[in-house]
Amino acid sequence: MTAITLQPIGILHCDLKKHGETPKNYDESTHEGTIEIYPHFVAGLEGILKGDTIVVLFWLDRADRAVLRVHPRGDESRPKRGVFATRSPARPNPIAVSELLVLDIHNNILNVQGLDILDGTPVIDIKNKIYSDQMK
Amino acid sequence: MTAITLQPIGILHCDLKKHGETPKNYDESTHEGTIEIYPHFVAGLEGILKGDTIVVLFWLDRADRAVLRVHPRGDESRPKRGVFATRSPARPNPIAVSELLVLDIHNNILNVQGLDILDGTPVIDIKNKIYSDQMK
Repeated sequence: MTAITLQPIGILHCDLKKHGETPKNYDESTHEGTIEIYPHFVAGLEGILKGDTIVVLFWLDRADRAVLRVHPRGDESRPKRGVFATRSPARPNPIAVSELLVLDIHNNILNVQGLDILDGTPVIDIKNKIYSDQMK
Repeated sequence: MTAITLQPIGILHCDLKKHGETPKNYDESTHEGTIEIYPHFVAGLEGILKGDTIVVLFWLDRADRAVLRVHPRGDESRPKRGVFATRSPARPNPIAVSELLVLDIHNNILNVQGLDILDGTPVIDIKNKIYSDQMK
């Protein structure tokens, strides 16, 4: 059980500054923002086009990593359940998986729609939503 | 840009031992295997039931982290594209996102179907596929 080290590939810029402001899930959000990819990783973006849906992995740097049981959607009237049975940001390795629409892409800057993530959150990966054999 | 440290929450056991044996994506696979969650994290599983579809994040410990452009699906007849425009395991932070069917769950052991991941791969997160407000 050796530790695993990630390096951020970029950072999110958007107008969601506080936890209470974020939509509960990306599929409930039309928030727009900008993903800035660090220069070292820009070659990895080749082939991403305006209009694509991308899967973006974020490192939720302000999430509680010690919690294993939560009230679903923070609703205290509902019984707690294990974090692995929820989409809560609180979890041992707080990684969010979001599907975002690419509104525009220029060099290392992607304008995206569908955010439920706080401003300043590190980006750790981007994947094509569509599998390779379906890709243009 | 500080480094991020993950700790594995478990490990995958299955009969996929070599790269050439793995299906290219989980949605093409009916392979079964077992996810063993380490004892410290078992409370996080509460609420996962047989028949659920779960989203499992794996740390692809044998993937190439230095590559930024690949031939889609390893097909050299196709032009290279950026890894972030593909589902290639090769990428700076090699995390796989798989949707798996829970065939059975007992304590810290989940029998799952839909694997395209090598035996011995660390598990770093599990999420409910369904969003919380749709959950039973």
